[in-house]
Amino acid sequence: MKNFPGTPGTLTGFALRISQCVFAVGSIAAMATTPNFFNFTAFCYLIASMGLQVIWSFVLSLLDAYALLRKKTIHNLVLVSLFVVGDWVTATLSLAAASASAGIAVLYFNDLGHCKFGETCQKYQISVALAYMSWINILISSLIMLWLLAAG
Amino acid sequence: MKNFPGTPGTLTGFALRISQCVFAVGSIAAMATTPNFFNFTAFCYLIASMGLQVIWSFVLSLLDAYALLRKKTIHNLVLVSLFVVGDWVTATLSLAAASASAGIAVLYFNDLGHCKFGETCQKYQISVALAYMSWINILISSLIMLWLLAAG
Repeated sequence: MKNFPGTPGTLTGFALRISQCVFAVGSIAAMATTPNFFNFTAFCYLIASMGLQVIWSFVLSLLDAYALLRKKTIHNLVLVSLFVVGDWVTATLSLAAASASAGIAVLYFNDLGHCKFGETCQKYQISVALAYMSWINILISSLIMLWLLAAG
Repeated sequence: MKNFPGTPGTLTGFALRISQCVFAVGSIAAMATTPNFFNFTAFCYLIASMGLQVIWSFVLSLLDAYALLRKKTIHNLVLVSLFVVGDWVTATLSLAAASASAGIAVLYFNDLGHCKFGETCQKYQISVALAYMSWINILISSLIMLWLLAAG
């Protein structure tokens, strides 16, 4: 398999995984510190989805770090297939969660003309924005992985 | 380029495009016949996104039908690259729109314990369900297209 930036075991790949983790942790932190997120199914789903994202990206960043330190390539077919499936599942879940939460945030901010929860409203917006940032990074990783798998 | 089920100019590919169209049209019809969808940004976005989906899928289904009737293969690199980009953009927009609308539908049905809009609530649910069905079909097309491009 070819070795281009962003594939597992490269510095770019490692950086992508770390940024996915950081944005997802930020999104969870912003949402979980609001007092009433558990009243909204979409916000609970966002936390669950970002939690899964953190676990997945963290494990893969460890694998990348190991491959970088030992200067090994971890491009075998079974591993890359596993990465592709995992990446696509987490990317889809992240986008769906971010969009569902964004739908509710926009409903409260624009459609109803006000946000009755005071300061926590900004936290909702920050959490949604960070979730989208995390999704953009996982999307890049997913596309690179699928390309790697298909290109052989 | 290889010729496997679902690629442009095959019967499976044509069926996928038609089903994307049908589900998207159904979703628009269910949403547009509710009296107050324009009060919700997410529902307007759903209609816009499904509208784009209908146009895109319809044009590609015409192209597939032409290729099927003339028994031509339309697998050149420039065309397939264009299809990949268009498919991924519409798939992402469709998922985001469906999820944003689903977030609001769940908010009204579960979180607030009731849906104050009477019968139109069911239409919201049907519209969101059809949007997801359309997305599943466009997702399959997108994956096949990316695979076709990457496999050469």
